[in-house]
Amino acid sequence: TRVHRIAAIPGDGIGPEVIEAALDVLDHLGRQSNAFRLEVERFDWGSKRYLREGALMPENGVAALRAFDAILFGAVGAPDVPDHVTLWGLRLAICQGLDQYANLRPTRILPGLSSPLSGVGPGDLDWLIVRENSEGEYAGQGGRSHRGQPHEVATETAIFTRAGVERIMRVAFSQARARPRKHLTVVTKSNAQRYGLVLWDEIAAEVATEFPDVTWDRMLVDAMTVRMTLDPGSLDTIVATNLHADILSDLAAALAGSIGIAPTANLNPERAAPSMFEPIHGSAFDITGKGVANPIGTFWSAAMMLGYLGETEAEARLMRAIEVVTSDPESRPRDLGGACSTAQVTARLCQAL
Amino acid sequence: TRVHRIAAIPGDGIGPEVIEAALDVLDHLGRQSNAFRLEVERFDWGSKRYLREGALMPENGVAALRAFDAILFGAVGAPDVPDHVTLWGLRLAICQGLDQYANLRPTRILPGLSSPLSGVGPGDLDWLIVRENSEGEYAGQGGRSHRGQPHEVATETAIFTRAGVERIMRVAFSQARARPRKHLTVVTKSNAQRYGLVLWDEIAAEVATEFPDVTWDRMLVDAMTVRMTLDPGSLDTIVATNLHADILSDLAAALAGSIGIAPTANLNPERAAPSMFEPIHGSAFDITGKGVANPIGTFWSAAMMLGYLGETEAEARLMRAIEVVTSDPESRPRDLGGACSTAQVTARLCQAL
Ligand SMILES: CC(C)[C@H](C(=O)O)[C@@H](O)C(=O)O
Ligand SMILES: CC(C)[C@H](C(=O)O)[C@@H](O)C(=O)O
Repeated sequence: TRVHRIAAIPGDGIGPEVIEAALDVLDHLGRQSNAFRLEVERFDWGSKRYLREGALMPENGVAALRAFDAILFGAVGAPDVPDHVTLWGLRLAICQGLDQYANLRPTRILPGLSSPLSGVGPGDLDWLIVRENSEGEYAGQGGRSHRGQPHEVATETAIFTRAGVERIMRVAFSQARARPRKHLTVVTKSNAQRYGLVLWDEIAAEVATEFPDVTWDRMLVDAMTVRMTLDPGSLDTIVATNLHADILSDLAAALAGSIGIAPTANLNPERAAPSMFEPIHGSAFDITGKGVANPIGTFWSAAMMLGYLGETEAEARLMRAIEVVTSDPESRPRDLGGACSTAQVTARLCQAL
Repeated sequence: TRVHRIAAIPGDGIGPEVIEAALDVLDHLGRQSNAFRLEVERFDWGSKRYLREGALMPENGVAALRAFDAILFGAVGAPDVPDHVTLWGLRLAICQGLDQYANLRPTRILPGLSSPLSGVGPGDLDWLIVRENSEGEYAGQGGRSHRGQPHEVATETAIFTRAGVERIMRVAFSQARARPRKHLTVVTKSNAQRYGLVLWDEIAAEVATEFPDVTWDRMLVDAMTVRMTLDPGSLDTIVATNLHADILSDLAAALAGSIGIAPTANLNPERAAPSMFEPIHGSAFDITGKGVANPIGTFWSAAMMLGYLGETEAEARLMRAIEVVTSDPESRPRDLGGACSTAQVTARLCQAL
């Protein structure tokens, strides 16, 4: 039996609800199989710890995570802590600390769900967004001078390194190669952003020569929103900077019918450190504690984690069960037009396994 | 008779086709009225001039424009000149040189057009996007070091000044106040961008106290794309940074049924220098010279220009005529599902006036 050590960080808001649901599912999957077993350790990091102890995680937090094979993350963010504190103090600290530089965001219309775009059905929107996850607009550089004075100036400096752009471009072309259509769209804004984004354009053209079997094209980020909306079938794999991809992936999730089901993988592709898997919906304090959170984004993230751990058969089984649940109006959570609680969705999913 | 001096800069691609169409319409409007007359001077600035003389406009170009009451701009960008050269050499040089810091982008579903969103009709999407147009991600600061080396680094520095944010926030709240719903949504990304975008949040709250009759809320730019797609009726006036608004306004135009009709006004609200009006569609070299360009975005921009010049009656007349044209399938250009050439659309519009 293969043993995989998992760090679970439920975090804030509905994070614990969806993470416990996913851990139940993973447990169920593990017991069905003799092939693998997950050893899970839970960490109580997040906003409550911040309010209690002044830090979202302990100082050696990132180092402690290195002992695990993968990390399952819920959500972070609370009404009583500034968003930039929670984000930089936990999620970004982990992603950047473990150099999880490739963020994969698959988006498609699951069976039973529908796009807000008229005439767009399941086969018409099937994308993989590759988000640069270690630099760019999230590099953390910037500051404020003359605070509160009439001549106050604040800066946000986006940093793009050749090494950073080359490695994400290689991940993007490799991911495109592994998909049936083998097509990559490189998103920039090099007409306005003349330094870092022109570098993106140049490196895309260089790396493309290493992948002659992958077709590719370029889009400006603003025009990209138009193409996603008016011609979704023309897109396959997409690579963009940290901020551009953040914006495009929320739009993608909305166009695919729900932000509640969108998963994400923060990968350290060389496996020099563990990778982290999480739903993108956030902590959703308005429904916290009501037992109605939609756990499907976390299930999908857990499926990606299984694939990353080499448990591809369990991954496929879980994805099929997710599709059984979304297909059946009787099994869907409230935000997908059903009436099921988190526990009921989880039970249905375990039945479907 | 009031006389208004207009600088016309047709520019590249379909720019001259749509600008000549709009000048015909303006001429028609002027002859119908005894109240005003436009004196138009044309400038041959753009990519052809760059290829011939090494600059998109003369060195004293911006200064020359100060003599006019308003500027009507077509498009800039050509396949044989890098996009960042054309953009910074002409359009941004004018906007920044004349301190046109407020960029207004109205978006609504014109009669006869339809949104790609199912169930969304004309009354459901009526937005005014206010784009900061003088700093932020388009401040022009940044650079590249170690060019071509493995350790190359490129930076893009976004600059936010208290003065710059305060003035755009005041324009946004004033614009919101002038609309029936009196609601403003302030877009930032202050969870990730901790300096300039936190400053946006702070100044929004400060300026809001000057406009107690305007309601307002805050959105993160990524979640904003979801709200625009899933709940368009909840939005009215929107203010965002230069780059965020660039992305959101293209999405808005797509959701309203066509990027071909979207207009924009680059305003110097204090009238210390002339303002500039242009369609947002760009130079569209694929259809250049075929006589099929959609001139409606330029007509709408011309209507905004008339309003700015105080000719509000002519503005209203032109807007009504635009709606007559879009309502009638027989009058529409090709990209709106009709069969009309640029000249035919223009003739129909003059008839409707
Ligand atoms: C929580 C937030 C800061 C985060 C991001 O911007 O990266 C989120 O929007 C996401 O897409 O994962
Ligand atoms: C041409 C381009 C640089 C421009 C911009 O980004 O400002 C355009 O997209 C716009 O929206 O006006």
